[in-house]
Amino acid sequence: MVGGMSSRIEVLYRVRSDAKSIASRAKGIAVEQSVEMPVEPIDDPFVLDEILGRVEDIADIGNGLFDVRIGLASITTGFEAGQLLNMIIGNTSMQDDVTLVDASFPEEFVVAFHGPNHGLAGLRARVKASGPLTCSALKPQGSPTAVLAKLAGRIAAGGIDYLKDDHGLADQFYSPFAERVPACADAVAAAAARTGIPTRYLPSLNGNLDSLRKQIALCRFCGLDMVLIAPLIAGLAQFQTLVRENPDIAFMTHPTMSGAARVMPSFLLGKLLRLLGSDATVFANYGGRFGYTPEECRRLAGFALQDWPGVKPCVPVPAGGMLLERIPEMLDFFGKDVMLLIGGSLLSMREQITEETARYVEAARAFRPR
Amino acid sequence: MVGGMSSRIEVLYRVRSDAKSIASRAKGIAVEQSVEMPVEPIDDPFVLDEILGRVEDIADIGNGLFDVRIGLASITTGFEAGQLLNMIIGNTSMQDDVTLVDASFPEEFVVAFHGPNHGLAGLRARVKASGPLTCSALKPQGSPTAVLAKLAGRIAAGGIDYLKDDHGLADQFYSPFAERVPACADAVAAAAARTGIPTRYLPSLNGNLDSLRKQIALCRFCGLDMVLIAPLIAGLAQFQTLVRENPDIAFMTHPTMSGAARVMPSFLLGKLLRLLGSDATVFANYGGRFGYTPEECRRLAGFALQDWPGVKPCVPVPAGGMLLERIPEMLDFFGKDVMLLIGGSLLSMREQITEETARYVEAARAFRPR
Repeated sequence: MVGGMSSRIEVLYRVRSDAKSIASRAKGIAVEQSVEMPVEPIDDPFVLDEILGRVEDIADIGNGLFDVRIGLASITTGFEAGQLLNMIIGNTSMQDDVTLVDASFPEEFVVAFHGPNHGLAGLRARVKASGPLTCSALKPQGSPTAVLAKLAGRIAAGGIDYLKDDHGLADQFYSPFAERVPACADAVAAAAARTGIPTRYLPSLNGNLDSLRKQIALCRFCGLDMVLIAPLIAGLAQFQTLVRENPDIAFMTHPTMSGAARVMPSFLLGKLLRLLGSDATVFANYGGRFGYTPEECRRLAGFALQDWPGVKPCVPVPAGGMLLERIPEMLDFFGKDVMLLIGGSLLSMREQITEETARYVEAARAFRPR
Repeated sequence: MVGGMSSRIEVLYRVRSDAKSIASRAKGIAVEQSVEMPVEPIDDPFVLDEILGRVEDIADIGNGLFDVRIGLASITTGFEAGQLLNMIIGNTSMQDDVTLVDASFPEEFVVAFHGPNHGLAGLRARVKASGPLTCSALKPQGSPTAVLAKLAGRIAAGGIDYLKDDHGLADQFYSPFAERVPACADAVAAAAARTGIPTRYLPSLNGNLDSLRKQIALCRFCGLDMVLIAPLIAGLAQFQTLVRENPDIAFMTHPTMSGAARVMPSFLLGKLLRLLGSDATVFANYGGRFGYTPEECRRLAGFALQDWPGVKPCVPVPAGGMLLERIPEMLDFFGKDVMLLIGGSLLSMREQITEETARYVEAARAFRPR
């Protein structure tokens, strides 16, 4: 790469500006996300030609908004996940007139990051499914391990495909990770042996990289092959390290701390986390507790699934206040390449939770694309 | 704690709402940031009394905004840095009607996290200073190691207190960490020997926890005792781990990826990073490239410095497009308990950089509080 023109990430930012300021504002972003200093004193041709961000295009999309395409040198990322985030949005995340909408990654990023180890096909194969996948969440935190394990067994008895820890379950004294995970894994395995459906239980990983590694080792010891992680809290570098170190484990990603407004969820959760190895990406569905639009959800699912040479599809997992009644609508909307995640509304059924889960699973399995 | 009423973090959220919806919206946040499921099916008194978030107060502050105080159970954090962030703002970061303004931490958090190991007094002692501290940044990325080292030496020759890597300097092939850090450390040490001012050079750490640890070991080997880290990219758990493992090293924190709008910078950069161990917190000064107001900057500096039993003061480091001409105004505004950070505008002086640095240092040292 040295000597020739190296590749660039093409980043699309949406910028609120007036027409007379947009050219200099766009230049400002290109500088902020590359050399981060005045350009005038720079005299090294390598820095000017290869490192300095380049405004490729500015399009007025109306309503005081502009779509600005900036080429950022791939080599500035060092092909490291945290630094990648730093370069495409880091400092600019502090400016409220800019949203990162999308980015196109040159092939070197596929070589460096690989994407999911399992993806949609792998997650279907694990549970011998061919259509939409089903998932629920173990809650509430504060419950003792025995209660959570019993609940896990009862949900699994309904034949669900995947059951994840609530992302609030960490390593608290009322259900420590090392106690909760074996207990819930056993309860789910026992139920799966009865139903014949190989339901998977996904513990929520937390803490620093040492802790994350120890937790994965415990998961593997308990016979588990999939986990939940929150990359925006763990740090993308930790997430990416775990994906690389554990090719046999599938990773579901949780969107907590993904923020609102500065980075479009479609890009962050649908494309970037897929590149870094998410097998299944949880996001806030439209019409739930969070404000994502149907268009943004469709775009996110599209990013997660679209053809990307060398990168397996990642399963879109719409969630956040979903009700069983919405299953037909959601499946019509997302199609069969999806994992539904319904948590709270199942838990509301209390003593009927196994039957309610079975009803949920049946509704998903009955789906026929229109 | 079990059995009695356990302590709560009092979190202040600013919520955009209408008067008739605010009570249920506040309740919604309290639920989202604790049990994250419908409350009705929960029957465990421990969960209801000790875990469920509690709306403590709602105040109409006008213009369709409400200040909502919510008590979140301390024990849900497991006293782990990443989970702490998850509990106070995680999912709510995805909702654009809420901003986290502030939080009060019970004493257990001081016991768990300690705050800075060195802080303001420690950073002054290192460079034998009593007034405002001076800092600059080594840029631009893309420069080869030899150029950066020479530049570092020339800035240090001007008698500056602290010189940090640009936060874009990571581990790229054009100036690999393991090559850049010893070279710049040597150049700065040589200049310091001549000036008699013990200028400190701060490398920017990056990568996963393994990489961060190796980099700190190299820094220590090079005789360095302070580093720069971006906690929102590294992950708070990694940052906190390094602070705990390296009590002899001081940490300057960089605000990249701290976002805009969902968490007030005063809280995130001034209070939370201080609690987790930041000795010096970089933030975007008012009147620079970023949109922070003077009030928010004053509040941030106030949080960083205010009396907090058991937690040392953290040095506020206003930055982002600062000019030498603003030094008197900045010192009048922030007082002497500050570290100025002027990067790009010094670098613009090219061949006169040593003299310009000396002028900068002199202007800071000449400060007498009004």
